[in-house]
Amino acid sequence: MNNNKNNFNVIDEIKKLETGYTLSNTQKILLATDGSVTTILDVLKGTVNIETLIQEYQRADLEIAKLLNINEGEEVNYRVVIIKREDEPLIYASSYIPLKRLTEKFKEDLIRADIPIGRILKSHKIESRREIQATEVKPSNEELKQIFGTEADLLSRKYNIIHKDNILISIEETFPINSFTSDFK
Amino acid sequence: MNNNKNNFNVIDEIKKLETGYTLSNTQKILLATDGSVTTILDVLKGTVNIETLIQEYQRADLEIAKLLNINEGEEVNYRVVIIKREDEPLIYASSYIPLKRLTEKFKEDLIRADIPIGRILKSHKIESRREIQATEVKPSNEELKQIFGTEADLLSRKYNIIHKDNILISIEETFPINSFTSDFK
Repeated sequence: MNNNKNNFNVIDEIKKLETGYTLSNTQKILLATDGSVTTILDVLKGTVNIETLIQEYQRADLEIAKLLNINEGEEVNYRVVIIKREDEPLIYASSYIPLKRLTEKFKEDLIRADIPIGRILKSHKIESRREIQATEVKPSNEELKQIFGTEADLLSRKYNIIHKDNILISIEETFPINSFTSDFK
Repeated sequence: MNNNKNNFNVIDEIKKLETGYTLSNTQKILLATDGSVTTILDVLKGTVNIETLIQEYQRADLEIAKLLNINEGEEVNYRVVIIKREDEPLIYASSYIPLKRLTEKFKEDLIRADIPIGRILKSHKIESRREIQATEVKPSNEELKQIFGTEADLLSRKYNIIHKDNILISIEETFPINSFTSDFK
């Protein structure tokens, strides 16, 4: 069972962010949606691809165990990717997945590492729901300044993909606040 | 089992529409997303509500039976609503739901008729996936000209919400091609 309480109201939180920042429709949708971000990027930018920065198995420490509602020491897949359109970096995304909740075929697709998670879920016809956990604006760091070529602040959100009442994937997505600001492309 | 073949590629189809029409990011996302449209409208416009035009049980004729993968004569809920922000009409939506696939509580919420389907799915924590079946531009008609106060052509899409491998809801959403064109607000 997923005991995670989720009283987070993404609409209210984005409204709070908007008191300090002007956000475009696309930015707000990217923060709020419970649908596939890959699909949204595909329709806005053309079919996107991913560059994998990290793909490894880890033993869950206390923090990750709590995040995923598993026991400390259980195995998780940790993946960090840049979602890109050709050479243009669009979104930086990190994810934790408890291995015990994956089918073999899902695991194979995940380790191949070049498939966005939204596309894996779709091709395996996985029924799920998404719970947004947090949205924020935060200062950039050296790694992300270099990846995105800008010093701009970052928009970020954390959410869980729930499957069979358990957290299947915990994701954080981040992009510069000066991207996705123009409406017609 | 859902035997519905879905070879429809929404990204390609929207690309085709774009050869004839200039679509905004928001319009393309509203056509392509496999997430909750209610959530997207909530974050763009402020919390939306619905005005119910039709809410009734029907016996499925051959066409509806085929659409939902049920037998002719089985009972379906047919609902037509306008999703609104205060008095502003945003999206016209019609839906068919096979009653045998609903829990009692879902049915109660549906018949109360003032709750958008995306919000019902969320509050019942229903795990699902969405398959887009069609997207198109079509001329308006008298009913929709009056509702939206414009003679503009309509953007429209059809999709199914799949739950436990069956079609739980078949939806058509429609809005004028001159709405959702501005990015900030």
